[in-house]
Amino acid sequence: MADKLTPRSQDYSKWYTEVIQRAELADYAPVKGCMVIMPYGYALWENIKEGLDRRFKATGHKNAYFPLFIPMSFLRKEAEHVEGFAPELAIVTHGGGKELEEPLVVRPTSETVIGHMYAKWIRSYRDLPVLINQWANVVRWEMRTRLFLRTTEFLWQEGHTAHATAEEAIEETLRMLDVYADFATQDAAIPVIKGRKSESEKFAGAVQSYSIEAMMGNKWALQAGTSHFLGQNFAKAFDITYLDRNNELQYCWTTSWGVSTRMEGAVIMTHGDDQGLILPPRLAPIQVVVVPIWRDDGQKSAVLETVQQVKGMLEGVRLEVDDREEYTSGWKFNEWELRGVPLRIEIGPKDVEKRQVVLARRDLPGREGKSIVPLDGLNARVTELLETIQRAMYDRALAFRQANTVEATTYEEIVEAVQDHFVYAYWCGDPADEVRLKEETKATTRCIPLDQERKPGRCALCGKPATEKVILARAY
Amino acid sequence: MADKLTPRSQDYSKWYTEVIQRAELADYAPVKGCMVIMPYGYALWENIKEGLDRRFKATGHKNAYFPLFIPMSFLRKEAEHVEGFAPELAIVTHGGGKELEEPLVVRPTSETVIGHMYAKWIRSYRDLPVLINQWANVVRWEMRTRLFLRTTEFLWQEGHTAHATAEEAIEETLRMLDVYADFATQDAAIPVIKGRKSESEKFAGAVQSYSIEAMMGNKWALQAGTSHFLGQNFAKAFDITYLDRNNELQYCWTTSWGVSTRMEGAVIMTHGDDQGLILPPRLAPIQVVVVPIWRDDGQKSAVLETVQQVKGMLEGVRLEVDDREEYTSGWKFNEWELRGVPLRIEIGPKDVEKRQVVLARRDLPGREGKSIVPLDGLNARVTELLETIQRAMYDRALAFRQANTVEATTYEEIVEAVQDHFVYAYWCGDPADEVRLKEETKATTRCIPLDQERKPGRCALCGKPATEKVILARAY
Repeated sequence: MADKLTPRSQDYSKWYTEVIQRAELADYAPVKGCMVIMPYGYALWENIKEGLDRRFKATGHKNAYFPLFIPMSFLRKEAEHVEGFAPELAIVTHGGGKELEEPLVVRPTSETVIGHMYAKWIRSYRDLPVLINQWANVVRWEMRTRLFLRTTEFLWQEGHTAHATAEEAIEETLRMLDVYADFATQDAAIPVIKGRKSESEKFAGAVQSYSIEAMMGNKWALQAGTSHFLGQNFAKAFDITYLDRNNELQYCWTTSWGVSTRMEGAVIMTHGDDQGLILPPRLAPIQVVVVPIWRDDGQKSAVLETVQQVKGMLEGVRLEVDDREEYTSGWKFNEWELRGVPLRIEIGPKDVEKRQVVLARRDLPGREGKSIVPLDGLNARVTELLETIQRAMYDRALAFRQANTVEATTYEEIVEAVQDHFVYAYWCGDPADEVRLKEETKATTRCIPLDQERKPGRCALCGKPATEKVILARAY
Repeated sequence: MADKLTPRSQDYSKWYTEVIQRAELADYAPVKGCMVIMPYGYALWENIKEGLDRRFKATGHKNAYFPLFIPMSFLRKEAEHVEGFAPELAIVTHGGGKELEEPLVVRPTSETVIGHMYAKWIRSYRDLPVLINQWANVVRWEMRTRLFLRTTEFLWQEGHTAHATAEEAIEETLRMLDVYADFATQDAAIPVIKGRKSESEKFAGAVQSYSIEAMMGNKWALQAGTSHFLGQNFAKAFDITYLDRNNELQYCWTTSWGVSTRMEGAVIMTHGDDQGLILPPRLAPIQVVVVPIWRDDGQKSAVLETVQQVKGMLEGVRLEVDDREEYTSGWKFNEWELRGVPLRIEIGPKDVEKRQVVLARRDLPGREGKSIVPLDGLNARVTELLETIQRAMYDRALAFRQANTVEATTYEEIVEAVQDHFVYAYWCGDPADEVRLKEETKATTRCIPLDQERKPGRCALCGKPATEKVILARAY
């Protein structure tokens, strides 16, 4: 690493792109708007996948796989859906050397093709609920792209469920929102706010959309996961029906929910600092890096012997030993800090002698994060420290969000704060307020938090009566 | 399950399609040639993935993800490659509402786009080898499709590696062929023959292709995995170079290797019988199904209590309890046999009394596969039995292949045997022989087995001098 990263305070966006490329999380692909997820970034994604997949299975969901190509006519069956997605579609017109009779859409999301299959599979109330998730790539033709946050192709999971009643479907929608919030807070150490999206921000074809919203390091919001109650919109468009207990034909109620590679962007921007990434231990591809230090060959063998001992002691930990000889220790420290490894273990000749090692936390700068601990009991110590780091990262992110959150009761207060705060404000729900705010400040309604006291107030945007607060912020 | 499956002897192809759909492994998608992998089929794929992925990582490979779309011009850079794949391409001509300046190909395989990135990433010998694998979907526009075996879109892994020398690349090619063979034999219980493909059967753009070939239940061959030594073909086409130790610019040597959802077809056709699937325990989504049996409510609670005990005892086993009351035990037995669950545990009132259970092996019909064992020590018994089943399945498949393999020294002998045998025959390597054989018998050269004595002989197809034997067979 020759040059320092651009400091976040100088150019946050540049810092973001630099840290991703230098830490080798991702690279630009030759096709505009597409990215390559490099091994380190993909290992992070694998850990995200595992944390989510485990939770999906624990809540009764099964994985399946539906086709990449969707007939154009399918999208047209749900009016709002096609209107929302039409501008973003990639279209296959030729296959096997011939022009296709009907163009195929590369899936931007799979409600339609899955709806078609559910209509075929579901016969009776005994078949319900259907609880299926898919891990897949999707394509949305984006004008402005940004690594992980908005790319033409991205990886995600999309859950699609069908239920006998609206109540059950709503319950499922909120259950998955909880699953996302649990993953974000527990595994990604990202505090999130669960809330309802406004009419204008909801998913094309949904009755109601919910999201988890997180504050990034530049105080903008990032929607890190969404869960949609689709009502009977897709059931009616695709004829997803079942015979109820009275042998009467009913439409199903469906939901969908998704988290994507965008979550990596959330991890990077929630925790990263001017030295680089800081990865939460539960998701970090490398949890501990061991850097052996020696001056001469006499020291080398003793040091490397202790390194092997340490490696053996930390079997359950994702550990890497950096014993490359062509780099200095200082260079290595910088490199692994850039890559966000939560904990570094330094082992030098003096440590070998004293049967100790030096631990250095990535989340605490300099001396504060350093400690010298005995070799004996290292496993327990490291395991505990990784948990401590995980919690500390969450706490720090939460404190940061709280310090940058304000309440506003007037439009002027909103304008003043909204560029670099989450602004809580009463809102009447009028879309005209959103249009004005976006035009004048570029800020948007992020979500109407579920966790709030509902009492009468005045809309901070236009003065009309209102009963609930919304979060306003700049957003990715 | 109302009707019996079509017997394999009557119509193997019909049996295959029926068993897949009735066991709910997969279904036809609305787009021609595409399939939906249903939860049971996807769970099988997840186990296949895990078995392979573990082996890839153990041999030093890392996963990454490259884009779905490839510029058309990339494919043209390698002459043989584009010639091989051009007829099978799906092409995106429109994105975001506009016609694209350059059409994009939906990847049929990723040598080209990965080659482009490697050219960017690899600078010096220190960067080598690059050992990357990707789990992805690919699209090949096929005229005749068949669930799992040949679908327009399929899931697979594709490994792509770059090396400093030809020797290392060849070593890697053969190492991954060994990995595939190890997975097939150990996890899928499928005996395979490792061999070299003929010139006409090799991958478009490869110097040398290798495959593992397995015999299906109808005595046809199935290529279950391939590994290619690409020489410097793609390195030259994409300018993948490195500075060697003498600071001289050299082209890399590359390999690629892949296994796809076709492996599910191999599992189905190697082991299945007229009752349905027989899944090898290591890959089976459900390894043990427990069927409680009772007549009246008095018996029910005692039986279900024992079921819970059994469930607790078999914690490490993938187990499902079928306590549905709307189906008879006989119906359930048939259903789980159809679905290929390796081991069934029956628990009735008499068993509760005697503190025993009835075990029924899927791979052995009727009484032969049944045993009554005490509850005590059930875990060890079941674990051991699952291993026994795994081995027995492999042994049976191997014996089947051996019983249906012959040697031939004349063309007449080949013609007589090749419809329902693996035929070993000396071959001189002349592609004209392959053309003739295919025209007259539809059989093809499968592979030139690596494991054979090389000595002079006469080509069984045309009489010219030959030094090695090839396997001839009908193939999927």
